[in-house]
Parts: sequence; structure tokens; C-alpha cells
Amino acid sequence: MDTLQTMVLENINSPEDVKKLSVEEMNILADEIRQGILNRVDKIGGHLGPGLGITEVTIALHYVFNSPYDKFVFDVSHQCYPHKMLTGRKEGFTNPLEHSEISGYFNYSESEHDPFMIGHTSTSVSLATGLAKARDLKGEKYNVIALIGDGSLSGGEAFEGFNNSSVLNSNFIIIVNDNEMSIAENQGGLYKNLKELRETNGTSQNNWFKTFGFDYMYVENGNDIQTLIGTFNKVKDIDHPIVIHIHTLKGKGFEPAVQNKEWGHWTMPGILSEKSPSFSMPECYETLTKDYILNAVKNDPQVIAVNAATPGVFWWNSEFRNALNKNYTDVGIAEQHACAYISGLAKNGAKPIWAVHSSFIQRTYDQLSQDLALNNSPATILVFWSGITSADATHLGLFDIPLISNIPNIVYLAPTRKEEYLKMLDWSVKQNEHPVAIRVPYFEYVSTGVEDTTDYSILNKFKVEEQGSKIAIVAAGDFFSLGREVKEEIKSQFGIDATLINPRFISGIDKELLESLKSNHKIVITLENGILSGGFGEKIASYYGNSSMKVLNYGAYKEFTDRVPMDELLTRYRLKKELICEDLTGII
Amino acid sequence: MDTLQTMVLENINSPEDVKKLSVEEMNILADEIRQGILNRVDKIGGHLGPGLGITEVTIALHYVFNSPYDKFVFDVSHQCYPHKMLTGRKEGFTNPLEHSEISGYFNYSESEHDPFMIGHTSTSVSLATGLAKARDLKGEKYNVIALIGDGSLSGGEAFEGFNNSSVLNSNFIIIVNDNEMSIAENQGGLYKNLKELRETNGTSQNNWFKTFGFDYMYVENGNDIQTLIGTFNKVKDIDHPIVIHIHTLKGKGFEPAVQNKEWGHWTMPGILSEKSPSFSMPECYETLTKDYILNAVKNDPQVIAVNAATPGVFWWNSEFRNALNKNYTDVGIAEQHACAYISGLAKNGAKPIWAVHSSFIQRTYDQLSQDLALNNSPATILVFWSGITSADATHLGLFDIPLISNIPNIVYLAPTRKEEYLKMLDWSVKQNEHPVAIRVPYFEYVSTGVEDTTDYSILNKFKVEEQGSKIAIVAAGDFFSLGREVKEEIKSQFGIDATLINPRFISGIDKELLESLKSNHKIVITLENGILSGGFGEKIASYYGNSSMKVLNYGAYKEFTDRVPMDELLTRYRLKKELICEDLTGII
Repeated sequence: MDTLQTMVLENINSPEDVKKLSVEEMNILADEIRQGILNRVDKIGGHLGPGLGITEVTIALHYVFNSPYDKFVFDVSHQCYPHKMLTGRKEGFTNPLEHSEISGYFNYSESEHDPFMIGHTSTSVSLATGLAKARDLKGEKYNVIALIGDGSLSGGEAFEGFNNSSVLNSNFIIIVNDNEMSIAENQGGLYKNLKELRETNGTSQNNWFKTFGFDYMYVENGNDIQTLIGTFNKVKDIDHPIVIHIHTLKGKGFEPAVQNKEWGHWTMPGILSEKSPSFSMPECYETLTKDYILNAVKNDPQVIAVNAATPGVFWWNSEFRNALNKNYTDVGIAEQHACAYISGLAKNGAKPIWAVHSSFIQRTYDQLSQDLALNNSPATILVFWSGITSADATHLGLFDIPLISNIPNIVYLAPTRKEEYLKMLDWSVKQNEHPVAIRVPYFEYVSTGVEDTTDYSILNKFKVEEQGSKIAIVAAGDFFSLGREVKEEIKSQFGIDATLINPRFISGIDKELLESLKSNHKIVITLENGILSGGFGEKIASYYGNSSMKVLNYGAYKEFTDRVPMDELLTRYRLKKELICEDLTGII
Repeated sequence: MDTLQTMVLENINSPEDVKKLSVEEMNILADEIRQGILNRVDKIGGHLGPGLGITEVTIALHYVFNSPYDKFVFDVSHQCYPHKMLTGRKEGFTNPLEHSEISGYFNYSESEHDPFMIGHTSTSVSLATGLAKARDLKGEKYNVIALIGDGSLSGGEAFEGFNNSSVLNSNFIIIVNDNEMSIAENQGGLYKNLKELRETNGTSQNNWFKTFGFDYMYVENGNDIQTLIGTFNKVKDIDHPIVIHIHTLKGKGFEPAVQNKEWGHWTMPGILSEKSPSFSMPECYETLTKDYILNAVKNDPQVIAVNAATPGVFWWNSEFRNALNKNYTDVGIAEQHACAYISGLAKNGAKPIWAVHSSFIQRTYDQLSQDLALNNSPATILVFWSGITSADATHLGLFDIPLISNIPNIVYLAPTRKEEYLKMLDWSVKQNEHPVAIRVPYFEYVSTGVEDTTDYSILNKFKVEEQGSKIAIVAAGDFFSLGREVKEEIKSQFGIDATLINPRFISGIDKELLESLKSNHKIVITLENGILSGGFGEKIASYYGNSSMKVLNYGAYKEFTDRVPMDELLTRYRLKKELICEDLTGII
């Protein structure tokens, strides 16, 4: 794999080098940056449309402002590829051997040009407000610039940041990158206002930004470097908060990403060779879920699928959304609202099913507790992408068990296979007693073909899958197969027939079963695909605390891992049959 | 204590009875409702100004709409006293013997007129959006009315609700009760817009509500029943979303609460007999904190106190706020912003100290994780009012240990006495390595007079306060005194000199110390003033899982308790020296 050859970009080692360029050279640079983005995404996947759309804005920012003296905070920072190429990290895009050396997000340990590590949405304005206030306390003078996309405006943290930053009495520049898209379509009344502002070239009296008291400028051609430089020069060193509303084209320069902006938001590798951006899905938890919902809505018009701005990751494509019609709500990037909304829906007799990422359900703890759990609203939450992964530190799915399972009233289920998942989902949707969350397996897809006939209304009933003695393995959800492997390894190494337990419930423990194990077991092993701290296994250790039962808890340590290979993590956490048996050797 | 005598109110047993009244009678009713509020708050304390301000609105709502067929959702619901008096619960206000039978918040188990249990801020619009959508799915027709105060508008969940409810194509009525106050002053640019709307009688083109596409009406005299009835009749059964912006007088009818709205928001009992609403505070954690901050700001202009709309509960009165001046920020009811803001402040060299309730830090989990912890920003968070209490289910302080201590990088400290608290606070403010949270004791105030010389930069170092053998008691924070009592009871009952350990760190364990205990201890008892599930003690149980050490974890069970007397809870959770010794009897 050859390094991408460039004429202008190859001489850019810091923003200082951008300042030496002519507009003509900057236009060439924009083309080369786009080639860099395409080159990287084609090889390792990543965010495509956001960076392609904001290339000229990024060049103009670095031409006019002086990073890192002036400070940029990018929202989500999935659009930071051009910024990285201009701040000494171009090899992460041009050289295939270095693609994985550079993260796809702001990362303060990578460069002084990234003031934070950022990966979640709607945070930039609030973070930048803190930077600006600290600057003012020190009596320093420089520009603090928060960049935020139109899609990110729908998150409550962004609103809180707008409300508070608007009363700063000092330099504060918010750049709203309006590409007319969230990940999917934008949702909510605010976006009619953005449309009105675009259509009136920013002159409409009806202006959400101005209602906070912000100064305001509109730039219609947000992909024209000369215009942008002119605008930024006007606001540089401004002495009060201003919003610069810039209209850009998401995906610019790569037609498939312009034509299908939702597809082009984030893509798998292979974009340059593929003829069509679509492919057919094998059966998996996503397809099961879609089929279940389509069927459920047909039979019960109270069933409603809810989503917070990420339909694509569940393969909830436009065909699916159109088929559901009024039985589908995308609330935008607004998990707090999503959680309260499903509580209201359920309280009034509807049957909401909210699909959400483990990493993003973190945005709604208080609503899970106060709006949903305290009201015992029988809504269903499907938690996808949970568990140990080689993901970025900003997108780990490790924390949902401590987050959800320590809130009273919520039933958190961990299916181990297709049949359990479908049974749990159906039970959850039809019952009227509890808020229920289901931790959709992510590690592997298993189908046994054996129907699950469990009555899940009997809470916290663990299932003994294989009865043995001396050692019991409680293997939750995704790690049930690992539990079986451990059982076999124990048999092989120690000649012991261990008991294999599928707990299914991870928000409570089966005291009766745990008590019964005492009679002919000496050791209980727990396996969970998430952080140990505050999780499921510790509850079992605590339960047995007053007894002679030994308990070994396995799961992830309390740490943010950043793109660490999966196998390395499993070894570090001793989540392998050989390592677990090694631990057993000492105490068996 | 006599029951309050009323003429009109005594005949109101349901909203149906309100509909029979003349405007003149309703005005008498308003006076009697105010007497009911004063009567109750004088005896048992509670929210005073909010209910006094919204009395006429509540009467007019019940006159025009048909609860519970039409559905009211009140934000925070601290202003629900008049609503409760009109919906069959007047004795909770008029009869001193029944004051404590009726909660001060919406409570669905109390009445069908309260669709939810509500106590946290900024939730009403989102919850009501769910009710309205479920109504539409069922093809039913009635009014869904969300009531929200101006102060609550600053919370992100409210914004998310406004954005999404504005595109409902059906009946949805938001009543904005604008009394020009949050708990303290409103904060942020949005409030300049509300002022502009009030000053233009709602006619300004610059209108935050209209930017979402809401229909809009303004009512200047929000304490005039006849006007309100006219307005509500106009919007009843409306077929689209509308905001009715109503200007009311917080505290109306009780001059001390009008003159000092911040004092009158929530008061202790005794309001009718007191000459002055102020009294002097004995030394306590609140006064220590204030003194520390005032002194710190004098010595270091980078120190900044941060608060999210509840300065009064920390006794951060206007004198304190004025003294701090630019070194103080109240962000309004916006904990997400507060958390990101302190991260930005700390990242840029400032020394933020954010004081927050345990119950309200729940509103900012993702920001604790992503904005603060992932960035290792050295900010200080003081968590007040944590632990087991007889509080309402909506305001428990039980969950902050699972919430905070399972997030990587955050150091969570639990001081047991004045001297430790001050040392920890000073260390936290001056260090540059970690985000630090301090769990301010709430159960009792202890000062030993012995200076704490600990170096807290050595993390997770537990302190052996009294060396013994056989049994070790790890007594965290507030429950250190209980630990000492248990130690004495063990000595008395079993003749054993137990080891008494003050862990100080509750976000990690001292493995070296725990390991050393194995040599001459058989039992470890943990005590924590919070929920056990996902908490501190379980981590110790897990640590000892592979050994023969027995571990008994004590703390609160995973449940929402609602105004349960403290002693009953301590007994239920066996958090008493006799009960703990009873448990020991079986295993010693």
C-alpha cells in the first residue's frame, strides 16, 4: 500500500504552514485533504461525510486563527480529519501504515491542537465555555472557538452550553456547521428554524441563536475558502460571544456520500472499490429486532420503535422507518428526552421499544432513574454494542451494567442466544409491570434452535444449564460460550464437572439458587462482558461474603481503554479458559 | 393543632367541584388555598413561593380542563400544592394531623390526577410528549398539558422536550410559569429573551418559543383567574402544540416570600411566627466550605466556585456570591453544562469547585465520564446531602457511590471529620492530576481537633485508626462513628478488639492493606451510607472472593424509599451495632 502523493499537503507540518499559502494553493490543499480522508476511510473505515464537508472551514480556521494559542473545540470531533492533517498528523491519512496510529477523534495526548479527548455529542460549547472562563480569570487574550454541527444542537448539553456561554462578556466564537443532516435526518422544531435561516440568508428575525443574545453571522457558501477567511478575519479577537452559522455540504467531493448522506456519515472500509454502498445482512440481533418490531406493530398499533439519531447502526433504514410510519420516533441526539418520552408512552398504554448504544445510554442516567424507574413505566430498552471492544476510549460499551443494574425497579436482562433474546423481547413488550432493558449480545451470535419457554415475569431466576458440582460458573450474556469453554477446560485439567449457570437477569441475583449451591460447591466463577466495578459479579461475591464459598469475578477492569486489541484485553482481564484455570489452581 | 377553617375549599373534593364556582368564589378559594400552603409549610416546611404564585393558574386549569381525562404534568411538581388541594387531598394542607400523609410532589400512587411521580427538574415536557404520542397512537382525544417554570427551562432535558414536542401534529399545551426566578436568580441568555417577551407583552419578534415553531400566547396577569380562564378556554382542544407564557408573582399573598423570593422558595417550618427569615449557622460543612472558598479565592484568582441553581442549600447567599464576584458561576439548572464547564476550566488552569446535591449529580453521568474523567481534568466536586434519609423518593442521596466510583480516573473521597474534609479539599484544589469528588458528610458533624497530615496524592490508601485482630471494620465516611460503635459492641459482646479502618477513598481499594489483614483477621465488615448495590463494600467482598476471609457488607438496599423514617431504614438495613453483632454471632 503506497503513501498518498500530495503537492501542498506534504509541506504542511503545522498550522504555520497553512498561513503561507495562497487561496489557490489552499484549494489544492482542500482536494488533497479529501483524498486523505478517502484514502484512510477506504482502508480502515471511519467518518467520511463530516470531514469532507468541513475541509474548507478547517483550512480557513487554521489560516486565520493561531492554534494552539487560540483554542478549537470540535463537537463529537468526528469531523477532525482535516484538522489532524493540518496539525502534524497527515501521515495518519496519507500513509496506510500509519492510519491506525492516529485516532479518529480529538485526543489531547496526540497533539496540543486537541485541547480535549472528545467523542460524544453536544459537548463542545460547554467545554469551550470553561476554557474561555479560565482564560478570563487569568486575564489572558485569545480566541476560544467551539465548533458544533447542526445535528449536535438537539442534545441538551449543547443547549445548556448555548444558554450559559451567551452571557460571557468576552471573546467566544461558536461555529455552527450546518450540513442539513444529523447522522440521519435532523429531528425537531429547531431544524425548521435553521432552514428558515438558510433560506433567508440568515436575515430572518426568527432566529434561535439570537434569542439567547448571541451576535450572529451567516455564511451561505461554507465550502468557499476565500469567503470563510473573510468571515473569520471579521470575528477574530471579537470581545463578545458570536455564532457563525455556516452552510456546508456534507460529503462534498465524493458523490456517493453526497447522494446518500446517511450512508456516508460513517462507513466500513472499501468505499473506493464498491459499486454500491448497500449489502445484504445475514441473520443477526439487528435483523431479529427489525423483524420483531415490524410484526409487533402489525399486531398492536401501540407498539412504537424509538431511536435517538442512530437508526443506521441498528439497520433501521428508510424502508423500515417508512414501514413503521407513525409507530416510529427518532428524537434526534436527545437520549434524555428519549428516556422520558418512552416513560410517558408506557405510562399511557403504549409499548415503546428504544434501541440505543451502550456508550450513549450514559447520556440519560437521571431519566432512567427518575422518569422511568421511579415511575415503573413498562418500557423496553435494547442496549446494543455493550462489552469489551477495541473501540476508541470515547465509545466503550463497558459501563451499562453498573449504570442500569444499580437503579431500583429496572429489570436488566442478558440473553445468551437468539431464542432467549426473542422471548425476553416479547415478554418485555407485553408486560405491564417493569421497565426492562435487554443487553443485546455483541460478542457473538448464537442460535440453538431450541425455543425458550421461560416465564420472565418471575424475576431474577437463574437457569442451571448444566448441573455439576464443586465449581459453578455463572456466565452472563455474551460470555456464556466462554463459560462453557471454561467448564470444558476445568473438566480437562481438574477432572471436575462444573455447574454451568446462565443468569439471564443481571439486575438482581437468584438467592435461592446461590444458597443451594453451597451444599455441593466450593467455588463460584462469574463472567461478565463489561466493567467488574459496580457490576454483576460483585453482587454475587457480596452475597457469599458470610460463607465459605469462594468467588472469582471476571470482567473488565475499571479503565478507559483506547483502541487496544481485543485479544490483549481478554488476556489482561484473564478472560480466557487457560488463565481462569491457572487462577483456580491456587485455590481448588 | 386545629384544622384550618375554610368556606369554599371545604366543599372541594374533586375538580368537578371547582367547575361549579363563580369567579368570586374562586378568588376566595385562591385565598384559602394560600392559607393551606402557609398552614402546611409553617408546620412541616416545604415549597412556599412556587405554590403561592401558581394558585390562580391551578384553579383556572381545573375549571377549564377535565383532569384526569385531560392530563397535567407539572415540572419538578414542587408547585403542586394547590393542585393537590383541588384533587381530593386538601386535608394534607388544612389538617396538621394529615400534613405528612400527602407528599409535596406529584405522586401517582396518591391520586389519578398525578400521572407520574416527579421531583427532578426539566422533565415535564418530555414526559408529557410521551403521553400525547400514546394518546395519538390510540386515536384518543384529550388535552395534554405540561407545566414548566422559567427556571426549569435551563435544563437540557426541557430543551430536548421542546424541540421534539414542537413537531407533534396534535394537541399539546405547554404552560410556562414565568415568575422571573429559578430557585435563585435565573442564569443565561434565554432569560433576557423572557424579559423582552414580558416587556413587550409577548409581541417581540425575538421569541425563543416561536423559533421551534410553537404557537404562542402571552398572559401578563397570571394571577387573575378570569383572564386565565379566558385564555385556557381559547386553547382547550387545540389541534397543535402551543406555548402559553404566563407571568406570575412568586410568593404572592405572603409578603416575606415576595420580598425575598430565594428564601421563600423552600422554607423550614415556623414561617408564620418568625420575625426574620434569617438565622446564624453553627459551624458545619457548609460554613467550612464557604470559609475555605473565600480564603482560597483571595490567595489564588484561578479558584472559582461553581453551582447549578441551588446556592441556598450550601448557604452560598448573596453576600458570599458578591464577595466571590467573577470567581463564582451559577449555571442555572444545568448540571451537564456544570460538569463540562469545570472540565474546561480545569483543563485551562483554573481551579473549579462545584458543590452539588447527591440527588442532582445524577443529571450528569455522561459528562462525568466523557467530559471530565476521560480528560482527567483536575476539578473538584463536592457532593452534599448523600446517604440514607427520610427524604422523598425523588430526592434520595443513595446512588452517588455507584454513579461516581465506577467511572475510571475520578478519585472519590469520603471524609469522616472536619479536619479530613479540609485537608482533602485543599489537596484536591491544589493538585493537577485527577478529577476529585468529595462526599461531604451529612449524617453528622465531627471535629477531633487533630490536624490531618495525610498526603492524598497516594491514592486508595486506607487508614487503620485502631489496630486490633480477628475482625476488621471498614467504616466509610459518614458511618465512621457507627464503625466505632460496632467496634465497642464487639468488644463488649465477644471480647474481641476489632480493627477499625477509615478508608477515606471510596473509588478504589487498598489492596496492600486488605491483603495484610488476612494474616490475623477472619471477618471484614464494611459500612457505607448509600446503596450497597454497585457500591464500595461489594468491591471488598470481590477482592476477598478467592480467600477464606468473610465479608459482611452493610448499606442501603436497592430500593426507592419514600419518606420512610430514618430509624426504620437503619433497622431495615441492619445498620445498628446490635444487629450487626447479631449477624456476627452466626459466623464468628
